[in-house]
Amino acid sequence: MRMYDILQKKRYGEELTREEIEFFIKGYTEGSIPDYQAAAFCMAVCFAGMTDRETAALTDAMARSGDTVDLSRFGNLSVDKHSTGGVGDKTSLILCPIVSSLGCKVAKMSGRGLGHTGGTVDKLESIPGYRTSLSEEEFLDQVERTGLALIGQTGNLTPADKKLYALRDVTATIDSIPLITSSIMSKKLAAGSKNIVLDVKTGSGAFMKTPEDAEKLAENMVRIGKSCGRNVSALLTDMDRPLGFAVGNSLEVIEAVNVLKGLEKGDLYEVSVSLATEMVSLVKSITPESARREVENAIETGKAFAKMKEWIGAQGGDTSVLDDTDLFPKAAFAYEVRAPKGGRIRKMNAEDIGKAAAILGAGRISKEDPIDHAAGIVLAKKTGDSVKKSDVIATLFTNDEASVAQAEERFLSALEIGRGNVPEEKLILKIIR
Amino acid sequence: MRMYDILQKKRYGEELTREEIEFFIKGYTEGSIPDYQAAAFCMAVCFAGMTDRETAALTDAMARSGDTVDLSRFGNLSVDKHSTGGVGDKTSLILCPIVSSLGCKVAKMSGRGLGHTGGTVDKLESIPGYRTSLSEEEFLDQVERTGLALIGQTGNLTPADKKLYALRDVTATIDSIPLITSSIMSKKLAAGSKNIVLDVKTGSGAFMKTPEDAEKLAENMVRIGKSCGRNVSALLTDMDRPLGFAVGNSLEVIEAVNVLKGLEKGDLYEVSVSLATEMVSLVKSITPESARREVENAIETGKAFAKMKEWIGAQGGDTSVLDDTDLFPKAAFAYEVRAPKGGRIRKMNAEDIGKAAAILGAGRISKEDPIDHAAGIVLAKKTGDSVKKSDVIATLFTNDEASVAQAEERFLSALEIGRGNVPEEKLILKIIR
Repeated sequence: MRMYDILQKKRYGEELTREEIEFFIKGYTEGSIPDYQAAAFCMAVCFAGMTDRETAALTDAMARSGDTVDLSRFGNLSVDKHSTGGVGDKTSLILCPIVSSLGCKVAKMSGRGLGHTGGTVDKLESIPGYRTSLSEEEFLDQVERTGLALIGQTGNLTPADKKLYALRDVTATIDSIPLITSSIMSKKLAAGSKNIVLDVKTGSGAFMKTPEDAEKLAENMVRIGKSCGRNVSALLTDMDRPLGFAVGNSLEVIEAVNVLKGLEKGDLYEVSVSLATEMVSLVKSITPESARREVENAIETGKAFAKMKEWIGAQGGDTSVLDDTDLFPKAAFAYEVRAPKGGRIRKMNAEDIGKAAAILGAGRISKEDPIDHAAGIVLAKKTGDSVKKSDVIATLFTNDEASVAQAEERFLSALEIGRGNVPEEKLILKIIR
Repeated sequence: MRMYDILQKKRYGEELTREEIEFFIKGYTEGSIPDYQAAAFCMAVCFAGMTDRETAALTDAMARSGDTVDLSRFGNLSVDKHSTGGVGDKTSLILCPIVSSLGCKVAKMSGRGLGHTGGTVDKLESIPGYRTSLSEEEFLDQVERTGLALIGQTGNLTPADKKLYALRDVTATIDSIPLITSSIMSKKLAAGSKNIVLDVKTGSGAFMKTPEDAEKLAENMVRIGKSCGRNVSALLTDMDRPLGFAVGNSLEVIEAVNVLKGLEKGDLYEVSVSLATEMVSLVKSITPESARREVENAIETGKAFAKMKEWIGAQGGDTSVLDDTDLFPKAAFAYEVRAPKGGRIRKMNAEDIGKAAAILGAGRISKEDPIDHAAGIVLAKKTGDSVKKSDVIATLFTNDEASVAQAEERFLSALEIGRGNVPEEKLILKIIR
């Protein structure tokens, strides 16, 4: 078999066989197939697409390109969630303890933030003592014992995806549904959960800017995941505005704690509960209505918050900051952004808000940048709210005073203040099962 | 400027600017743009194509990526020819002396053969003493003095094309009209002639298998060449059967000599004369009818053959082999291929004939292979001829007796012998000016 012939087939729109795709992934991972042939492959896929059979074969080959986590001891109870990334998206911190408190087994590996979106591992590291790195044995033991462990990506998981993603990133071939699907789903397959719920976001802060593209991706991922033997659902959710009020690492942990304590409802509550509902429904094979009752009950009774403390404590974190979130280290500077004029907030571009938070130190512009865990933004107003001139719209937190001017400018560029009502946008646009 | 953004634009079907294309070619030639980005670029062009403006900018940037030959001293008299490659195609050996004997200035650089097609430089090296490598000064002086010099590709001509072609060859991106056009035309621009005639071949022995594709390529090359300031015409010619009767290096020189001596007419004569006619017509700005009279007269009067001897002699070649072609070194083995059955030859696949000749030693399978200058095939029959069982169809010549069986098998696989008339195919399908 020759990579040349595989490229030639793809170039002329022929369907590749499972063997050909495995040959490519194996060769590329080992280094016998060079970057330039892989780059030509990715660009050809961007134009020619892939059939479901091809995408499933690619996903499967990538999932098996390195280590895999064996969660078979948990039977059908294991469940994972993946979000395509957003601004203020701290749902993992909320839904993991909820579903775990209801008997689900969550052995979760999360990423770090890059660009305008945050990462769960960065957020958890704002909790003093929390260990994001565990041995496989510690990791699985903790899931066995407490029902939940959450660590950074570890070991040699999907090396093919790591290599291919880095290549796509420099060859303008990120934006291809089969390549996105195989990248996301291969990691989820390798991570071992039997049930997977996908949160596919759409809007100004999301990777997929239109609901149509997001829906295509969601449908593709659900189909491919199922054909690889997992139970998969996807929720299409709005990311045109930031989710919740806090953007930034400890700020988001605090907000997540508030939701689990029953102190905050709104969009963040709704998206978290909806995702948790879908997870419980998959694991227990019960109706979404019954699952939702269990999920809401877990919050109301404090069971979910108790599970959060158990989990954080088991992983070495200081749970006193969860009981009293005022104990979190504070940023040195707090700066209030005020409305430049009165009116209704008609738009709040989520990507710009995310970038403003990154400027303050909450995120990374490039992979090696350090994170300021206390930095970020807390919104006082959101899209649809009325403001008078000079009303506080948000507070910027940072330890780097010099960043404030640029962050404020970026923040204000995200806003559109005008007249008239703002049509309510749906939070959960669609559920794909 | 970033290569990433250029890839992104091409990926989404936007037209690239001249500056962007120059940035790519300059960076790729220098090595600051890596192979994987260039491979992604080529694959994107395979799918998205290029506008004429883009193709002209690419051609021009590639032409200027290395040395260029300055033929301005010859004014409008300089003329070049390019063939997309065929089997038995020795027209350069015939038309160069013809047009040079009529006052045209031919400073020609040719390639070597690879695969099933031969190269003019290999053919000329079958003439004892012929020097295919001259200094630029010797080369231009000889053109000045005799009107004609023909050497191998020299110096640092179009390094961008060399690098890009090698990359396309391993990424299945050869087959793209704008990339083929820019590859061929950049070399012709760098070689400096004011007038260029293209022989675009179509059929079983050609790179372009269908007349439609060949015509598209021809039209594209003519448009791009003109927009780069040259006079360009293209002839679409048949390469469904080998051209003439001889395939192999000294065998082809002998046949070319016979045409110039007026001893052979037929398809080789017709294609050579038609191309020479177009060249003379461009250089002298005269009608094709007048040009053809001059060309035929140059053969009939022996002026063209005299010019061939002057040229070969000037370049160190032994002209006695031209006067008496029996003096060419002979292959040790001659083997007659006989008709396996009687009937009419309905098909003679040119690519297979070329490959059979290569097996005998006339061509290279890979770039480093040596050439047996006496090896090859002389056809006794061609498509359309009737044969009786056991009639000699061709003679195979080689110094490697072991190759004969495989070559004969290949040769026979090229044949289709059946009943009924074979429709005459046009030799010159179209002239594009």
